[in-house]
Amino acid sequence: MNESSERDTRHKARMQRKKAVVDEKIAEAQDEYGLLLVHTGNGKGKSSSAFGMVARALGHGIKVGVVQFIKGAASTGEESFFRRFPDEVRYHVMGEGFTWETQDRQRDIAKAKEAWNVAAQLLADPDIGLVVLDELNIALKYGYLELDTILADIESRPLLQHVVVTGRGAPPGLIEAADTVTEMSLVKHAFKSGVKAQKGVEF
Amino acid sequence: MNESSERDTRHKARMQRKKAVVDEKIAEAQDEYGLLLVHTGNGKGKSSSAFGMVARALGHGIKVGVVQFIKGAASTGEESFFRRFPDEVRYHVMGEGFTWETQDRQRDIAKAKEAWNVAAQLLADPDIGLVVLDELNIALKYGYLELDTILADIESRPLLQHVVVTGRGAPPGLIEAADTVTEMSLVKHAFKSGVKAQKGVEF
Repeated sequence: MNESSERDTRHKARMQRKKAVVDEKIAEAQDEYGLLLVHTGNGKGKSSSAFGMVARALGHGIKVGVVQFIKGAASTGEESFFRRFPDEVRYHVMGEGFTWETQDRQRDIAKAKEAWNVAAQLLADPDIGLVVLDELNIALKYGYLELDTILADIESRPLLQHVVVTGRGAPPGLIEAADTVTEMSLVKHAFKSGVKAQKGVEF
Repeated sequence: MNESSERDTRHKARMQRKKAVVDEKIAEAQDEYGLLLVHTGNGKGKSSSAFGMVARALGHGIKVGVVQFIKGAASTGEESFFRRFPDEVRYHVMGEGFTWETQDRQRDIAKAKEAWNVAAQLLADPDIGLVVLDELNIALKYGYLELDTILADIESRPLLQHVVVTGRGAPPGLIEAADTVTEMSLVKHAFKSGVKAQKGVEF
C-alpha cells in the first residue's frame, strides 16, 4: 500500500469514528468533535490567533498543550504569559538551534523529530483539549518531518481534541485533512515603511 | 474645511508627532510608537488574533483595554479568561440589546455612542498600552458611529499605545489610517459541511 492510499485509509477510519460519534450523539442533538484548524498565509495573526484560542479554551476550563517548532518565531510575551498557568497549559519551546546557517540537515531533522515526539504525547493525551503546533508548517516545508507521520498522529488523537497548526506554506495534504483553513493575507504593513517591530504587538 | 481635509490634517499632525518622536529617538536607536492594526476579511481569527495580542501584551507587563462592540460576537471563553486579571485588563462588553430585529435605529446609535465613550476613555489613558476595539467595524458599517470621530480619538491617543480594530468590512478610511492591515480569508470551513460550532474553538 503506498503512502497516499495509507493516508486515505487512515482518513476514512477517522471519518468513520467521527461518523459513529456523530450518529450516536444526534439523538441528543450534539455533534461535537475535535477540529483540525490550519492558519497559513503571509499575513500577520497566524500564531496570535492560535494563542487567542488558547485564552478562549482556558476560559472554558479546557487544558492546552503548545509546541513551538521554531524557537523565537513566536512571541516571548505569549510564552511568559501562558507560563503563568502551568497546571492549565503545557508549553514547550522546541527547535532551539535550528541551523539555517550551517546547513546541518541531519541535526535539524533530529531536533524536529524530538519536537514532534513532544507533540505526539500531547496528541495522545485525552486530558488536553487543544493542541497548538506553532510553526509546524516550517518544519514540514524544509522536509524535516514527514507529513504522513504528522497526519497519522493528528488523526488518531482523542476524538474531542482540537488541533491548530500555524505557519506559512501549509502543505496541500494538511489543508486537505483540515476542517477549517484560514489564510492571513497582508494588506498593509508598517514595517515595510521602516518601523521597527514593537514590543507587545510583534513579539 | 470638509471632513476629508480635516482627516488629512489630523493624519498629518499625527504623522508629524510620530516623525518628531522618531527623529528624537533615532539618536538612541529606537523608534517605538503605538501602531494601529486592523483585522478584517470574512475568515476566522480576526478577534482571536487580537486576543492573542492581549496575551502577548500581558506577558510584557503592558495593561490592556478591551471594548466589545457587539455582545455575543466574541468568545465567552476569552471574556471569562481575561476577566481573571482585572488589574491588568479592563474588559467592557457593550452593544447588548442591539436591535437588529426591531430596527430601532436611534436606540442602536445611542448604545453605540455609549460604547464609544468607553473606548475613548481607554484611548485617552496613557497607562493602557493596548486597546482592542472588537467588532467596531460592524458599528461603522451600520452607520451607528462616525468614522471621523473614531479616527480623531484614535489619532490623538497616547503615542505609545497600540490599537487593534476587528471586524469584517473595515472602511477604506480606517484602512488608510492603519499601520498594519491583515485580511483573514476563509479557505475551508468545517461548518459549511454541517458541523456545529465547537466550544473552545468557535466561542
